[in-house]
Parts: sequence; C-alpha cells; structure tokens
Amino acid sequence: MAMTGVLRPGHVALRVTDLDAGVKHYRDVIGLMETGRDAQGRVYFKAWDEHDHHSVVLREADSAGMDYMGFRVDCEETLERLAAAVEGSGLATDLQWIGAGEQLHTGRRFRFTVPTGHAMELFAHKDKVGNGMPDVNPDPWPDDLKGMQPTRFDHCLLYGDDLDGTVKLFTEVLGFQVAERVMAGDTMVSAFLTCSTKPHDIAFIRHPEKNRFHHCSFILGSWGDVLRAADIISKKDVSLDIGPTRHGITRGETIYFFDPSGNRNEVFSGGYIYYPDKPVITWTVEDLGRAIFYHDRKLNDAFLNVHT
Amino acid sequence: MAMTGVLRPGHVALRVTDLDAGVKHYRDVIGLMETGRDAQGRVYFKAWDEHDHHSVVLREADSAGMDYMGFRVDCEETLERLAAAVEGSGLATDLQWIGAGEQLHTGRRFRFTVPTGHAMELFAHKDKVGNGMPDVNPDPWPDDLKGMQPTRFDHCLLYGDDLDGTVKLFTEVLGFQVAERVMAGDTMVSAFLTCSTKPHDIAFIRHPEKNRFHHCSFILGSWGDVLRAADIISKKDVSLDIGPTRHGITRGETIYFFDPSGNRNEVFSGGYIYYPDKPVITWTVEDLGRAIFYHDRKLNDAFLNVHT
Amino acid sequence: MAMTGVLRPGHVALRVTDLDAGVKHYRDVIGLMETGRDAQGRVYFKAWDEHDHHSVVLREADSAGMDYMGFRVDCEETLERLAAAVEGSGLATDLQWIGAGEQLHTGRRFRFTVPTGHAMELFAHKDKVGNGMPDVNPDPWPDDLKGMQPTRFDHCLLYGDDLDGTVKLFTEVLGFQVAERVMAGDTMVSAFLTCSTKPHDIAFIRHPEKNRFHHCSFILGSWGDVLRAADIISKKDVSLDIGPTRHGITRGETIYFFDPSGNRNEVFSGGYIYYPDKPVITWTVEDLGRAIFYHDRKLNDAFLNVHT
Amino acid sequence: MAMTGVLRPGHVALRVTDLDAGVKHYRDVIGLMETGRDAQGRVYFKAWDEHDHHSVVLREADSAGMDYMGFRVDCEETLERLAAAVEGSGLATDLQWIGAGEQLHTGRRFRFTVPTGHAMELFAHKDKVGNGMPDVNPDPWPDDLKGMQPTRFDHCLLYGDDLDGTVKLFTEVLGFQVAERVMAGDTMVSAFLTCSTKPHDIAFIRHPEKNRFHHCSFILGSWGDVLRAADIISKKDVSLDIGPTRHGITRGETIYFFDPSGNRNEVFSGGYIYYPDKPVITWTVEDLGRAIFYHDRKLNDAFLNVHT
Repeated sequence: MAMTGVLRPGHVALRVTDLDAGVKHYRDVIGLMETGRDAQGRVYFKAWDEHDHHSVVLREADSAGMDYMGFRVDCEETLERLAAAVEGSGLATDLQWIGAGEQLHTGRRFRFTVPTGHAMELFAHKDKVGNGMPDVNPDPWPDDLKGMQPTRFDHCLLYGDDLDGTVKLFTEVLGFQVAERVMAGDTMVSAFLTCSTKPHDIAFIRHPEKNRFHHCSFILGSWGDVLRAADIISKKDVSLDIGPTRHGITRGETIYFFDPSGNRNEVFSGGYIYYPDKPVITWTVEDLGRAIFYHDRKLNDAFLNVHT
Repeated sequence: MAMTGVLRPGHVALRVTDLDAGVKHYRDVIGLMETGRDAQGRVYFKAWDEHDHHSVVLREADSAGMDYMGFRVDCEETLERLAAAVEGSGLATDLQWIGAGEQLHTGRRFRFTVPTGHAMELFAHKDKVGNGMPDVNPDPWPDDLKGMQPTRFDHCLLYGDDLDGTVKLFTEVLGFQVAERVMAGDTMVSAFLTCSTKPHDIAFIRHPEKNRFHHCSFILGSWGDVLRAADIISKKDVSLDIGPTRHGITRGETIYFFDPSGNRNEVFSGGYIYYPDKPVITWTVEDLGRAIFYHDRKLNDAFLNVHT
Repeated sequence: MAMTGVLRPGHVALRVTDLDAGVKHYRDVIGLMETGRDAQGRVYFKAWDEHDHHSVVLREADSAGMDYMGFRVDCEETLERLAAAVEGSGLATDLQWIGAGEQLHTGRRFRFTVPTGHAMELFAHKDKVGNGMPDVNPDPWPDDLKGMQPTRFDHCLLYGDDLDGTVKLFTEVLGFQVAERVMAGDTMVSAFLTCSTKPHDIAFIRHPEKNRFHHCSFILGSWGDVLRAADIISKKDVSLDIGPTRHGITRGETIYFFDPSGNRNEVFSGGYIYYPDKPVITWTVEDLGRAIFYHDRKLNDAFLNVHT
Repeated sequence: MAMTGVLRPGHVALRVTDLDAGVKHYRDVIGLMETGRDAQGRVYFKAWDEHDHHSVVLREADSAGMDYMGFRVDCEETLERLAAAVEGSGLATDLQWIGAGEQLHTGRRFRFTVPTGHAMELFAHKDKVGNGMPDVNPDPWPDDLKGMQPTRFDHCLLYGDDLDGTVKLFTEVLGFQVAERVMAGDTMVSAFLTCSTKPHDIAFIRHPEKNRFHHCSFILGSWGDVLRAADIISKKDVSLDIGPTRHGITRGETIYFFDPSGNRNEVFSGGYIYYPDKPVITWTVEDLGRAIFYHDRKLNDAFLNVHT
C-alpha cells in the first residue's frame, strides 16, 4: 500500500469554558455535525466528508486549550509497532494505553507526550458513520449542510519549547516529513510536518512555554468558501483573528477566528500536493511575516501572543 | 514514512502525428513548460508545480496514442522490490529494464505490459529542475505562466480488455487501492485506482481492444480555472469533447478536449481527499451517465467510442 | 436622474401544468421566496435581493408558457407617457389597462402585444417587501437561503415572427438599445436588448410562430454558484438542457434547465457592464453556435426547437 | 433611452511624484493599457474592457493626489444642459470649459469645483479605441492581459469638508442618487452616489480639509481575481493597505493598496445591482467599522488618515 503508517489527524480534544456556547460554535458556525455525547458530558463532532465517527471532542473545563490530538494509523500492527517505537525512542513521556471505548466508537489509543509538552495519540480503529451519502451512486455533497461546511478536520498548529525533540519524534519515529520550516540562522523556529500529500498534518512553533495550542484547522472546498466563512464570522459576531488572506507557507487561503472560549480556529482552502521527494521549503525568520500572512507581510500581534 | 512505494504518476509518453502542432498544443494551450528535446526528437514537458524534469514526452508517429505511462517510486530498493514482485506475479508481460538516460534526466525504468495491454513503467529517479521558484522564501506561483496553467500531470484513463487482471496487478502487486468502480452486475467495468490521497492516479475501463488510450489529465487550482481553460479551448479553436462539468466519480470539476492528433486531454479541479480506510464507492452501470458526467447524466457518444 | 424610463424586468407570468410541482421547483430548486397567493390561485415569488413584492407569478393551466412579462418604469408620468407612445406607434395590439390590485401589491399595468406576439406590461408601482435585511446596518446576505439562491429575475428570451417590429418598438418607443444581435446576411435573426447597464433585459429570436417562450433567467453571484446550481439540478433530478457553459453573447456563465411543466429556466453569472455608447456586437449566423454556447460552438437540438 | 444624463466615471487625472514608477505600477501591476502620451508628458491608460481612449491620466508633480475626475454624459445637449445647471445651481466654483483636444482624443470638457473642493468634469466625447476584440463574433476576453486585469475604472472615494453641498450638487443637479450613506446622528458623514445600476460611481467622506483623494477603484471579474491581485501586490512588493476583505457598504469584495507615490488604489469585485427605487442603505457611525470592512469590523488607522 502506498499510504502506510500514520494516515491522518484523526481527532482533536478541546477544552471549552462554556460547553453550550462551544457546541453552538462548532455546530452552527463552523458547521460540524454533532455525532454523540458521552457519560462524561463530552460532545463529539465530525466534518461532513469524514467517514469516522468524530474528529472533534469538546469538554467543559476551567480553561480553554487542547487536551490531546490523535492520529489514525493504518492497522493494529502499525499501532503496536509505532507504540513500541515511540517508547523505544526515549523522546516521549507519560506513555499510556487508553482502552477501547473511552472515546465513543473508538478503539484503544496509545497516548504519549511529545517534547513540546503536547499529548498525542495513535489509534487504529474508529467506527465508520459515513459522509451522509450512500456508497453506491452518491451525489457529490449531502443536503442540509450548515455554517462554513468544511469537509475535514485538517491539522493543528501547536506552540512549545523543545521543537527539535518533537520534530525528531515525528520524523524519525512516526514517519512524518518536514514540508516547510522557518529558520532563525541555524535554529528551526517552526516546522510544518506531513504524513500525506497535504502540505501539513501538524505544525509547531518554538515558544518558551510547553503545551500551548495555537489553532485547529478545517479544510474548505474553495476560496469562495473562505469568503462565505468570513461573512458568517461577521454575521454571527464571532471574534475574527485575521483573514481572508493567503499563507506563504503551504500557499493555503485562510481565515482565523476564535471559539467562544478563546481557542483559535482556522478554515482554509488550497495548498499544493506534497510528495516525499519534494525539496523542503525554508523561510528565513526575517521573512516570517510573508511566510505566515503572504499579503500583509507582517504578523498581527495576536498570532504570536494569543494561544490557549 | 507514510507515503511509501509508488508515489505518483511520473510521466506519460504520447504519440502525435504532427510534432510541431503537438508541441504548440501542450505548451501554449495546456501551458506546460518545454524542458528538453532528445536525440530521438522527443520533446519533454513539465507542469509548473512539478519539480521533476518532465511528466509528458511527445514523439512523432504515424498514429496517435500512448506509448507508456511511468510511476515514480520512493527509492531504488522499492524499484527493485516492485520489479521482482511484478515479475513474480505472472500478471505482466514484456518485462524489461530501460537504462538510465534513455529518457533525459531519468534513471533506469522497469517496464512491463499489464493485462489490458498498456505498457507501464516504474522508476526511482528523475532530476529535479524545480517549480520556477526558490526553495527559500518562495512566492505562491511563478511569473509568466501560460495557457491553462495546470499544476501537475495527474492521471490517465485507459481502455482495455482484461480489466480484472490489471486491477489485480495494481492492487495486489503495486499497492494501489480501488477508490471507485463501476459494476455491471458482478462484472467490474471500470476501476479508479489510487496510490495516494488523490481519488485516482490511474483508471481503466473495460473495452474489447487492448491498449487503448482515453485521456491524460492535468490538475488545475479551481473551478474558475476550468472556465478559463474552456475559454482558451474556444479562443484557440481546440476540439472540445465535453465540459465544463462535474464527474460523479471523484467529484472532480472537468473539461475534456483533444490534442491536434486526436489524443484526449482533461484538465480538472477539485475531488475529495482519499484515505485507505475510505469505503469503496460503487456505481451501477445503469447510472453510468451520472457517474461520468454528473450534470448531463448521460454519456456523449465520444466518451465511449473515441480513443487512441 | 441617470436611470430613467423603463428600469427593469419586473415580473414574468408563467403557466404551469401542475401548480404544486411548479411551486416546489421555483421555491426549492431555484430558491425563490413565495410571497403570496391570490384568489385566482396564482402563486407569487421573488428572488432574495429584490425589494418588490414579486417577480414571478405562476398559474395552473393546460399548457405551459408565458402569459406576459412586465417592466417596472420609474414613475407614473413615465407610465402614462410610454403608454401613449406605445399606442401612438401603431406597433402594438391588444392595448389595455389592468387595474391596480389585479396582481397582489401591484399598481395599474399597461398591457400590449408586441409584433412577435408576446404580451408585455409596464407598471410604475409594486409594494416593497425588502430583501430580508434591514435598511440600517445590513449584512451582505440574509440567513436561510435555499436552492440556487439567485439574487434577481434578470431577463426573458422569447421566440416570435416579426422580430423587426418588436425591436423597433423596444428601441424607438421604450428606449431600449440593441447590445448584441445575430445577423443572417442583412436579416436580423436575434436581438439582445437592454434598458440598463446589463447586457440584456430582454431578448428575441426570429421564429415562424408568434408568442413562444424560450426561457426566463435569474442571476447568480458567481461561476461557483453556477456549479452549485448544476449540482442541485442533478441532485433533485431536474431536467437539464445544457451547461454549465459560457455564452458568447453577453459573455455570461450559464446553465439551462426545465421546470416540471417544460418551461425553460436559466441561471447565470457574469457578463459585462453595458453603456449606451458601447458599439453593438454583431454575430454572424454562421457563428451562431459560438455565439450561444461559446465552449461547444454548436447549438444543441433543444435550443432552437424546445419552447413553450 | 433608459440610461440618460451622466453615464459613468470617464477618467481620473492623478499626480505622481515619479512618472516612470507610476507608469510601471498602473501598467504592470494593475494591468492597464497605455494608450498615449501627450506634449505635456502626461501618460494615458485604459482598462481592457473600456472602449474609450483612456480612463486614467498620470502627470508628474511635486505631490501626489487627484487633479480632477471626469464624467461621460450621453450627448452634447446633455453636456450643455448640465453645464448650465451646474452654473445655475450656485453650488460650484471655478467653472470653465476646457477645449477639445486638451486631453488626447477627447472633446471639450466642462470643469467645476464641488463644495468639498474637488475638480470635476463633464464631457460628451472621447474617441473609441475598442476593447481589443472585434465587434463581430468576439471572444469573451482578449489575449495578452497583464497584472490584475481590471475590466473598467469604476469610481473614486474623496474626502472633503462640505459634504452636504457636494451631495446636493450631485443629486439635485447631476441626477445621481445616494445608494448608501453613513450617519452620525443627523449628520451625514459619508455618501455613496450612483448614476447607474452600480452601487457607486463616486463616494465622499466628510473631512476637515478640502480636496483630498482617498482612492480610485477598478473593477475585477470575481473574488478569485481579488486573490490574484493580492498575490501580485506581494509578488511585486507593492504597499498593501488592507484586504482581501468585503465592504459592508456596497457588499464589494476588495483589496486596497498604494501606488509608488502614495495614491491609494482599490480593485474589487461583486456588489449588488442598484435601481433608483431601491431604499437608501444607512449605516450608523457606531457601526462604521463593519460598514467599511465587514470582516474586520474596525477601521485600520490608514483608512481615515492616509489620503493624498
């Protein structure tokens, strides 16, 4: 098989300070489908073109932020192999197996903390619930879509201290590649990592604190959908960060905004097709503004300083 | 590494009956870059966002059609492993190694004929010539793009008799998966095969003759680019087949047209992100019209009957 | 005032053979808002960005087709002046005043039959019902839009015999201009007439029979909306005529389809800004295919032969 | 005729501090066509879909800004009638006739200064040079377009003190209408004026100084073209003001940037179809941010403070 090992970002578990407000945001503004609630009160969502039961899990907590992010691997053997490799690497801490069923409709998960302080998970099974259309003679999109109508949860951008350690773990143990990076002289200050043909499946920025969450991102069908998302943000009085604009990194067309608890979200479209033999794109830190916001060519204050 | 084995369609070698007319078409209409000519008189082209030296090779001949299609694999070890596997499978004929340099800037290629009669190649090396932009602080697109401005050669659709044999070889030996298929009762009449997160990297339709070429396809950035391509087709008096329209299969937004020798080309945008755990989409042959041309819901005569 | 006289197409009154099916089509497929039903059983609709009470009126009848088309003029004085001019021209027949209130929320209308046999109306008043948003600090679009979401009723294309007479009446009496025309030698076979900066507000094609209806057209925001409309046509099993494609005439991006009674509809986007000093565009009948369907460069059978 | 009186913004005459840099900007960045240079050293440009000889005139001067803006009226009689009406109104100063030929290929112009201090002109004749395509069987767009490829010069936004006087002159004498306005209590602080079906042909914002120039604007075909313009701005290191974004006022999709002399330019797409019976849209000054930049919902510092 040509796609092996880690297949994709499978879920992100977020803390929100007001669950009802969070549900309204992820369901009515972003337009995810609510697929379940569990005994702990967690609420599960999926984007419309995902077949798995969920890709976003919300729980109410005293502070916003990300609990963990999970990656779908191709099979149980890969799960065991990668769990052993993570353990053997000595790069991760807090290793544990979470039993099947702890998340609704989800098999066992191997959890570990990467050097930047973020909890990551690998799992090989989640129940399929379909994308709202039959597998025989389907239409191109289902009826009754709402909000921004992203097709999939795409990636997270995370801030943390030991960027080198986390990049080492993702590339040498989990099979990711660095598609793009930002360098301050010889120091890598940011890495955009892929396990697929997408320009990024996860990204990190060097930051003095451990375990900070910058944003989770959902993919849209077109630049026209980014405009529609921007209009929805204003129509529904959602807090905008920046956009519509283009990233230099990944070339994606993007808009950033905040959920009611202050967690940053992105919806975006575009970007190139990545292959493992593509040269790494390097951005110099002097050109960081253009790398992040290609049109403005400067960072807004929030980008570096607001995270949860 | 998560992307392993066969990475992507790497080149298609086409016969044209008038080389100059063909060069003008692929360069000025489609907008590929000419990257070289060899001692045999073959002309090499790449799409702008490809880093490899070429993805289309034209040669003048008495009849139009496809000589062969080549796939880039991730490394030399994979090349040797897959060559041995193809040989061991007993599914392919006319096995041969083509020496490095037979195509400009290209390593050795392992060539074989699949049960539908098409010559296929695997190769692990082609020189990188870049995408017209630096690897450090690049812009999102280069200046001086021409024609339809596709970013990449994407796939071919081929017609042939032993569809089952070819699908078996691609799935069981080369690691492809069937993303979508058309069934006439228990008989598979078409298969759309992927080795990546694209909905197809190659596709086949069952047909009484061996080794027929239906089209080669190039990917565009957006539905707006499909309109622009359609306009260019009329502005330059290119023979249109059908479009702009949408495929039911793959959901792509598409237009078909012919090169001056009668080889069919496609440019398209869109389509979903494929993963190996996605259910196979099945189309029943009764709904073939909608499967191929989702808006018209019927095939035009040319689709089934015109091939080279 | 710079916009004077006849302002715009104000309504089209259509016959449908099944009123319920017609209502579902214009409301759920095209996405017009139902704004009223009268004692005669007629159903009234408006497009979302129209402020007037209605622009489409359906009534059930034994055969499909257009009863009449009405134009909004700028004031009562213009209405009287143009009514007198129409009468004085000797070009129209069946002159009559229809009293205020015969259509819901509509002032008196001056009706007359033009030389191609079509009933036309002028009116100066229709109650304003707004576009779903306040006049103070509005959003760019309202919530809960459905179907294809056209912003306005735009124009009709009509078939009839005495094209010269009708064009003379529209240009010399009503103040329209010929933006584009199709000529077969010295004979005008089609005229696209405008009373605004739109490329057409009404159009006619020469045809042996009087009073035939080719289509009524609604304007969309973008080429992306044309794709969405095309998808809806297939999702809802609506009969497609042709498209998505571009017209040579007016440059509009278009798709044609039929209501359940066989009346043709168009939704389109784009087209240029017309001014009265713009040269007339002339198409030769030899190039009629390209004039009508710029990409196909030939007419489909239905275009000339199917009308109601 | 339905379009009478003042037809459209016909030209804007701008001062640039470096003529060569200005020519490069308007020609290569915005993509206007240079159509002539006169004995005074002025350089003339048109947008591709304009038929008149020019719509932008640059001259080198010590300071940037706008010399005057000219409006095309429908005929010589209208020119004389409006000139007399302007004079009779007592609202304008510095009345003068400029002789035919003072601008290349242009008839006599009636110039006057409006109460906000801006010089305005009316003219009835400018030579037609065409839009790069024949009037018989044209394609939808010409070859060899450059830069942002706007189709037309669309409007200017000007800052000045006596807004009430200028609005009175434009509405009561020249036949414009207020499509949208911003109110601070009972005081109008901004007016968007139209003489057509466009949401604005000229706009003013109240400001303590007379005769300030905020921007001149060119219209694009789509939101995709706005992205392309944004990319070009960064690729060519042009100074960006803000965008891509949407205006609340007019609903247009927009990006602002500066020419090398500091004159602000806009390119935009979209906006609604205006008719004279449409209710005036009113924005309260408390919501000015959303009125101007619908997504950001706040003004950037430059919008109010940078003008030439």
